[in-house]
Amino acid sequence: MSDIAVPESHPRYESLLTRHRIEAGVEKGITSQQGLIAQGRGEAFDYLLGERTIESADVAARVAAAHLLLAEHPVLSVNGNVAALCPGELVELADVVGADLEVNLFNRTDERMRAIVDHLREHGATDVRGLTADGRIPGIDHERAKVDAEGIGAADVVLVPLEDGDRAEALGAMGTVELVVDLNPLSRSAQVATVPIVDNVIRAVPNVTRHARDLTDASEADLRAIVEAFDAEATLDAAERAIRDGTEREA
Amino acid sequence: MSDIAVPESHPRYESLLTRHRIEAGVEKGITSQQGLIAQGRGEAFDYLLGERTIESADVAARVAAAHLLLAEHPVLSVNGNVAALCPGELVELADVVGADLEVNLFNRTDERMRAIVDHLREHGATDVRGLTADGRIPGIDHERAKVDAEGIGAADVVLVPLEDGDRAEALGAMGTVELVVDLNPLSRSAQVATVPIVDNVIRAVPNVTRHARDLTDASEADLRAIVEAFDAEATLDAAERAIRDGTEREA
Repeated sequence: MSDIAVPESHPRYESLLTRHRIEAGVEKGITSQQGLIAQGRGEAFDYLLGERTIESADVAARVAAAHLLLAEHPVLSVNGNVAALCPGELVELADVVGADLEVNLFNRTDERMRAIVDHLREHGATDVRGLTADGRIPGIDHERAKVDAEGIGAADVVLVPLEDGDRAEALGAMGTVELVVDLNPLSRSAQVATVPIVDNVIRAVPNVTRHARDLTDASEADLRAIVEAFDAEATLDAAERAIRDGTEREA
Repeated sequence: MSDIAVPESHPRYESLLTRHRIEAGVEKGITSQQGLIAQGRGEAFDYLLGERTIESADVAARVAAAHLLLAEHPVLSVNGNVAALCPGELVELADVVGADLEVNLFNRTDERMRAIVDHLREHGATDVRGLTADGRIPGIDHERAKVDAEGIGAADVVLVPLEDGDRAEALGAMGTVELVVDLNPLSRSAQVATVPIVDNVIRAVPNVTRHARDLTDASEADLRAIVEAFDAEATLDAAERAIRDGTEREA
């Protein structure tokens, strides 16, 4: 279904290529149908943002990098869309900050779990968590609560790109520091995040990596200062203004 | 893939049910993967609009009804998403205004054409055009140019819900009056439309039917007055304000 020729004359050629990468994810059994719809929602918000990393999102990416470097046990949560869109970039970020990768799906099936784990391994991951699923996030339904007890279940900082609102809320209620990548600043995931990064995951993940490399030699005191100076609410307000007005003014 | 249980406790229960209707369309071979992504884009814009028919869209729906009633040869163009979301409502509108239904796909395959024609027939359509495909819209690539010579090829007024920008532009260049339903007022389809209706197709199609019923006894002069008083640019501006500001002010 994805061998559709995109005429190069089409004005949104790059955007269509990204979509085809997602569709290839469907064929590999990585991306769900709900994932395709979520991709469309993201595209609309990204379009209104001007398909660029706004200043407030760049600040949030730096704060996220500081959190990951300060963490005892950081975990990068991977769902189907993220795996399809930027598997290599996630493996690189995990290496730079010493984080675990854990596959964490809204519509969990053994086949999809395995396809995503294999896909991450093809992109250089060695250990990938998520298959054990011996832990539960309290307060949410059945299948969606499953996590690895020694992974997200024991993490102090979790990067959750494109997370479902229910689960983001339940994870926050556990006291976990949540770094969320979401293009909708009004979504519950963004609203409950310790650090909401309102940006396309394709731009945000490498940007967090870049900041983490830049901060590698920073002292713990400096990292704490970066983290403590962050205002999540002002960041979300700035992103909403960027989407609503097409511009981003001072908070 | 679509027998996913949606917990009723989920805050966006209705929206998820709509998505599942679209996913059922995928299983029936009606909705393409690109269609799922387009559905997601629409959801994001609808979310910013407040998931309601704004005043300017209601005016546009009435103008569209007047155009359909004035037309010599009106055609309702049907793609995969529209067929999955509101097949019965399209058949009803076609009856009320005496329009033909024509299946018109961006990613055209014989299987999808046939599945959609069958789906419309299951919802009460008698004649459905699109399979002959003996006409071409000038100025666009290969497969996407195909129409029925006696259908869209000969139409004076076409309702194109959720049309691709390239094709909307080429159709407009033929001199056809285009009534477009699109949730993104900045899309090329909306921009080139004679009458852009910035609304969810699920709300817009029955709304055009309601206005058409209301205008059944109107004189040709009255219908022409409604059509001539319409300002497409002001309508798009009002919709953009509604999306950007969350409110709709006077144009």
